[in-house]
Amino acid sequence: MITADAADTILTGASVLIESNRISRIDSGGTPPPALHGVEIIDASPYVIIPGFIQTHVHLCQAMFRGCADDLSLLDWLRQKIFPLEAAHSESSMYCSALIGVAELIRSGTTTVLDMGSIHHEEEIIRAIGESGMRAFVGKAMMDINDLYPPLKESTKDALLTTHRLAEQWHGSFGERIRYAAAPRFVLSCTDRLLAGTREMLSGYPDILFHTHASENTGEIRLVRDRTGMDNIFFLHKMGLLSHRACLAHCVHLDDDEVGVLRSTGAHVAHCPSSNLKLGSGVAAIPKFISQNINVSLGADGAPCNNNLNMFQEMRLASLIQKPLIGATAMDAKSIFAMATRNGAKALGIDHEVGSIEIGKKADLVLLNLNNVWDPVNPLDNPYSAIVYSAMPENVDSVMVDGRWLYRKKEFTGLDWQKIVRDSRLQMERLLGRIQ
Amino acid sequence: MITADAADTILTGASVLIESNRISRIDSGGTPPPALHGVEIIDASPYVIIPGFIQTHVHLCQAMFRGCADDLSLLDWLRQKIFPLEAAHSESSMYCSALIGVAELIRSGTTTVLDMGSIHHEEEIIRAIGESGMRAFVGKAMMDINDLYPPLKESTKDALLTTHRLAEQWHGSFGERIRYAAAPRFVLSCTDRLLAGTREMLSGYPDILFHTHASENTGEIRLVRDRTGMDNIFFLHKMGLLSHRACLAHCVHLDDDEVGVLRSTGAHVAHCPSSNLKLGSGVAAIPKFISQNINVSLGADGAPCNNNLNMFQEMRLASLIQKPLIGATAMDAKSIFAMATRNGAKALGIDHEVGSIEIGKKADLVLLNLNNVWDPVNPLDNPYSAIVYSAMPENVDSVMVDGRWLYRKKEFTGLDWQKIVRDSRLQMERLLGRIQ
Repeated sequence: MITADAADTILTGASVLIESNRISRIDSGGTPPPALHGVEIIDASPYVIIPGFIQTHVHLCQAMFRGCADDLSLLDWLRQKIFPLEAAHSESSMYCSALIGVAELIRSGTTTVLDMGSIHHEEEIIRAIGESGMRAFVGKAMMDINDLYPPLKESTKDALLTTHRLAEQWHGSFGERIRYAAAPRFVLSCTDRLLAGTREMLSGYPDILFHTHASENTGEIRLVRDRTGMDNIFFLHKMGLLSHRACLAHCVHLDDDEVGVLRSTGAHVAHCPSSNLKLGSGVAAIPKFISQNINVSLGADGAPCNNNLNMFQEMRLASLIQKPLIGATAMDAKSIFAMATRNGAKALGIDHEVGSIEIGKKADLVLLNLNNVWDPVNPLDNPYSAIVYSAMPENVDSVMVDGRWLYRKKEFTGLDWQKIVRDSRLQMERLLGRIQ
Repeated sequence: MITADAADTILTGASVLIESNRISRIDSGGTPPPALHGVEIIDASPYVIIPGFIQTHVHLCQAMFRGCADDLSLLDWLRQKIFPLEAAHSESSMYCSALIGVAELIRSGTTTVLDMGSIHHEEEIIRAIGESGMRAFVGKAMMDINDLYPPLKESTKDALLTTHRLAEQWHGSFGERIRYAAAPRFVLSCTDRLLAGTREMLSGYPDILFHTHASENTGEIRLVRDRTGMDNIFFLHKMGLLSHRACLAHCVHLDDDEVGVLRSTGAHVAHCPSSNLKLGSGVAAIPKFISQNINVSLGADGAPCNNNLNMFQEMRLASLIQKPLIGATAMDAKSIFAMATRNGAKALGIDHEVGSIEIGKKADLVLLNLNNVWDPVNPLDNPYSAIVYSAMPENVDSVMVDGRWLYRKKEFTGLDWQKIVRDSRLQMERLLGRIQ
């Protein structure tokens, strides 16, 4: 069992007692677990138990658009494909998109996400996540400017009112599994008034997060400079939005002063290596951020810029892409595994609840079968290497969130995968019909 | 069905007739295949049929060392880990290592490899590949210098004699599935005499290939310059080794003059993106090579520098790593798929036999189930995207080599995976015992 606790403890032959939705006891191996009256015993001995992965930047509203927007850079990708597709979502297609994304996340071992929706139908995303059993911070995207694709925007007032209403209604819902993150999409899609309104709202809700994109692409940065006279991080800081409650996706092109602002404000970076490569954005200076004690976690971003929602790929790539730049010893597997688990929990301010296997924490667990990622002698010799460099979704045997199995012995316990695929294809056909 | 022929033909509802080990007829859909007496009909309609992947640089002798040598750069990786581990191979451990690698290759859709062995026990690698049913060019590594780890070397005479003997005995064996490639490991491990002897041997065997590493790492290049006064490609050319029969792994750091030599000699590049990242070597200028009509194919290299032997990962990475450098439109999925199939066949000089699905070619086929790499409306809308950016080994349903199923409905037809894992663990324990 890999606990992902602060000491990176690995336990062999340990047993975990789960009562209701929490880990109430860990026996650290050697002796069989005590027989407790009325307790179901699950033999996990063929598996490696890890905390569920936490992805701090995804877009479930785009999950249905996988394969529809390849080989484009960020602004073209948004203008030509993603914004028109998002604008064409109906309630039904939004629900389908979220559900197919959730299913992929669960079966590949992700138990918590920070999701950014589109400007409408956020309730459908919340319903899909909530019903599925996953844990998430959700937030409708706020956009009161859209020079790339004008139909996908809303008034400043609507953006803020809808965000207020959604936060009021859903923050803490589904047994605390759903929480809210206010999400102005990126500087280019938001007036100063919208960002000021967001700051005001954040001060009224002390446990709601702030989620946005920043410094993903050089074209975006140039446009932000043209409008604000400064770079993303400085502008967001000037607007009073950076703090330990801020999770910023990408941060690919920051100068040293911007890195200093991240450090001093405690803002978190959500690193999305596949997306940053696929959109041609660049390689974020993650080792520098880490050396400055900036908290870095991982996310797959949207299916159309990845084209998966698979934490194993993000972990492997987060390590590999730095090595030609920094050296082969950079970003070892253990550090990457921490980024995928406890650093994600820290970014979301829920590291007292999830992100590691410790007594008192909520039971968000994954059982990995590493038998086919063959490892010499014993997979526990170097489990971080096997998980980060070799493993894939096929190695996920079972997934528990909040003490409940969502995926067990490679089958969903609640979701009907074939139906989800059928429904999504139908919804996608209709959606494409709406934009032709 | 994706044929990977020169016109990138995609056929929907087609049927393929296989007689003995060859494709004898393709009916291009619309009508059901003719009922032929005594012909077994396989309904592949839920699947996408593709040519088997061809990897033009692997080291099966290292497959057992996965996870044993992470986070090191090339020369340290060889000195501290790989050379001592290779030197400790017994016949039994070599057979096991090859077999566990072959099993991983087959179940992830690779049907042909160009393999480089170690200095000894090459017969065990040949036996494992031959018995498994895979197709391969094999070659013992030749090394008559080893400043990094002196125990792993042999005399010039032994290197050449053993290579001669192996080529005589095994080239064309196992029904032509096994062929030979003379493999001086890299310039640093070979005297000029050994390289001259290799050239002489190649002139005596007109259909044997030349396989080596070149310009993988800046440290290696410096040492080659110190010894020879020139860069890898010029030195290999001076030794008379470059032609359309040469397959050079890596080529990460070439200057324009070296690229010119590759172009003018017709030598092929085996691109190994995972390995180049993981060993911190760099990113090869593949788009430049392609623009100069140099043939580029793909390989996973060794399990300890990857840590998989999975063509899906190499395809996705070969595309993604170029985009931040060249732009998001670079290295689209269709070009990458060609690299993984027909370009590999071309590199090995067997493009008249394999690498695409065409009448008269040998039946090396893979059935992919793309249902769980969900794709809007119909996977055939953009199958290259689904295969290159999204698919994984779990999408491989069945694999045929030379007209024979080696993997069928996600089960090996001949190999016993559980036994292979058990044997490999035992052999690895013993091998580690031998170097302690």
